[in-house]
Amino acid sequence: MPMNRPSLDDLQRARSRIAPWIHRTPVLTSETFDRMSGASLFFKCENFQKAGAFKSRGAVNAVFSLTDDQARRGVATHSSGNHGMALARAAACRGIACTVVMPRTAPRAKIDAVRGYGADIVFCQPTNTARAEAVADVLEKTGAEFVHPFDDSRVIAGQGSCALELLEQVPDLDAVIAPIGGGGLISGTAIACRGIRPSLSVYAGEPANADDAWRSLAAGRRLVEDAPDTIADGLKASLGELTWSIVSSEVDAIFRASEAQIVDAMRLTWERMKIVIEPSCAVPLAAVLAQPEPFAHRRVGVILTGGNVDLACLPWQHTTTTTPKG
Amino acid sequence: MPMNRPSLDDLQRARSRIAPWIHRTPVLTSETFDRMSGASLFFKCENFQKAGAFKSRGAVNAVFSLTDDQARRGVATHSSGNHGMALARAAACRGIACTVVMPRTAPRAKIDAVRGYGADIVFCQPTNTARAEAVADVLEKTGAEFVHPFDDSRVIAGQGSCALELLEQVPDLDAVIAPIGGGGLISGTAIACRGIRPSLSVYAGEPANADDAWRSLAAGRRLVEDAPDTIADGLKASLGELTWSIVSSEVDAIFRASEAQIVDAMRLTWERMKIVIEPSCAVPLAAVLAQPEPFAHRRVGVILTGGNVDLACLPWQHTTTTTPKG
Repeated sequence: MPMNRPSLDDLQRARSRIAPWIHRTPVLTSETFDRMSGASLFFKCENFQKAGAFKSRGAVNAVFSLTDDQARRGVATHSSGNHGMALARAAACRGIACTVVMPRTAPRAKIDAVRGYGADIVFCQPTNTARAEAVADVLEKTGAEFVHPFDDSRVIAGQGSCALELLEQVPDLDAVIAPIGGGGLISGTAIACRGIRPSLSVYAGEPANADDAWRSLAAGRRLVEDAPDTIADGLKASLGELTWSIVSSEVDAIFRASEAQIVDAMRLTWERMKIVIEPSCAVPLAAVLAQPEPFAHRRVGVILTGGNVDLACLPWQHTTTTTPKG
Repeated sequence: MPMNRPSLDDLQRARSRIAPWIHRTPVLTSETFDRMSGASLFFKCENFQKAGAFKSRGAVNAVFSLTDDQARRGVATHSSGNHGMALARAAACRGIACTVVMPRTAPRAKIDAVRGYGADIVFCQPTNTARAEAVADVLEKTGAEFVHPFDDSRVIAGQGSCALELLEQVPDLDAVIAPIGGGGLISGTAIACRGIRPSLSVYAGEPANADDAWRSLAAGRRLVEDAPDTIADGLKASLGELTWSIVSSEVDAIFRASEAQIVDAMRLTWERMKIVIEPSCAVPLAAVLAQPEPFAHRRVGVILTGGNVDLACLPWQHTTTTTPKG
């Protein structure tokens, strides 16, 4: 898989390539959150993106970057979450085969969504070893192109298109903050910001319970964390080699948020902004509200990454049944 | 209170008057719902409106229509829901007093919101008689101007500004559908549509469990229903004299939805559109999905009325506690 650092040109080409297949998502503001933070916040709503998350950008870019010869053999990935759905949809857009390796423990809704886009699913035990073996087996049998969830130039370039849009929609931003997990989105975001407006601050929000990126920056070397426990299930991955090389040189700071702060920020966003966001998506706002000083009196773009949640099981509730009252 | 039928000019004046105090809400589309309905649906997102509902339009118009002399004595209303919050906010915008008569059984969140805007609350027993007595008492003591939740020309003119915006945002609509409860919104909507584009179909969606308007149209006279039982708590009121006179002459048809259809439409909207809407707000979409034939192949504006829900108590869940897991 391509592991070179994408350039601003790569991002701009990705943006044109994916334009027919993705939404140009809107930017919303909130007086409540401006008041609470002391900043002017501009929320880039990738929760309204195709397949419910920014992941569609990178997946579509990877799929539509393939030669016809590569495309004939299809694509494959491993994912229990939004990347699997996004790749399955992207493959369906191009009309090619897609295999997603998923742990047997993946949520029913995600399994159904991947199947709904017509992809094949190979189930494996929920361990890294079992996953790697299953992927190797799929690639050997199908000759499919592997599309890594984040450590892939094509994916990073696609994710970077989100910040390109945001910088056009709100031209005079002082800072941008996005969640950090495997680092694909923040890498693309950093490349976009450095290229378009070098003075802009590039920040990441990370769950304190899965803070490998924060600790890596502090240590000056890439640390890997195995199976962290956080409600922000999209941010459990550790940085890859490529994303670490970009994050370590281009990201100005990482701000952490506790589990309670993440849940509070998620709930407040639903209540005040009337939009559905998933826990991982709430992490940057949680971090801003927890440590408002660096953001005060500044114009800050906040990338809302996704809105795929199980409505029957919300983090502020214990549920016993899903039968409607009516 | 003013009981003349508002004209298109009244609506346009209302729109200018309230512009500084309300949002011009966006219009969203959904491939999922277009596929399910066979129509092209355009969702006018009043769930993003100030105080979380279209009610802010009518309330602001009423408050800013007052003479200085009237304004000095303040405003009053009765409401257990969005109108009370909207009027409290509107009064705060003008800096005048507001009293809201609420049943002792009103949801805690609504009580807190009304107080949060600085209004006085007078609690009464949850009966029509107790409410009327409490209101009469407030008006006598304060000399306040009564602003009825729907049977008031100023309120209807304000609500009609929503359709004026929608018809600008999507100029080539074939039909518009809005919920019907007391009838303020649908009356303003009908006046706007008849004035701007007489050929456009004006439809209402109503809970089957609170179908006084549907039965009134069928009977040719205004029927009043006492305390209907529906999850769409914003649509329990029956039509008033003024709204009945407009609805009976200007609304083309009313479509009903069952409780299960309302909950399904609400949940699907959260899942697919990633926006938070309240049960009353889901009624028109539920009606379209339940009876798609009249809407097929047409461009239909759907007014999403509000997003004020208790997130700890969703209709597809039974909850036992609200403690976050994290």
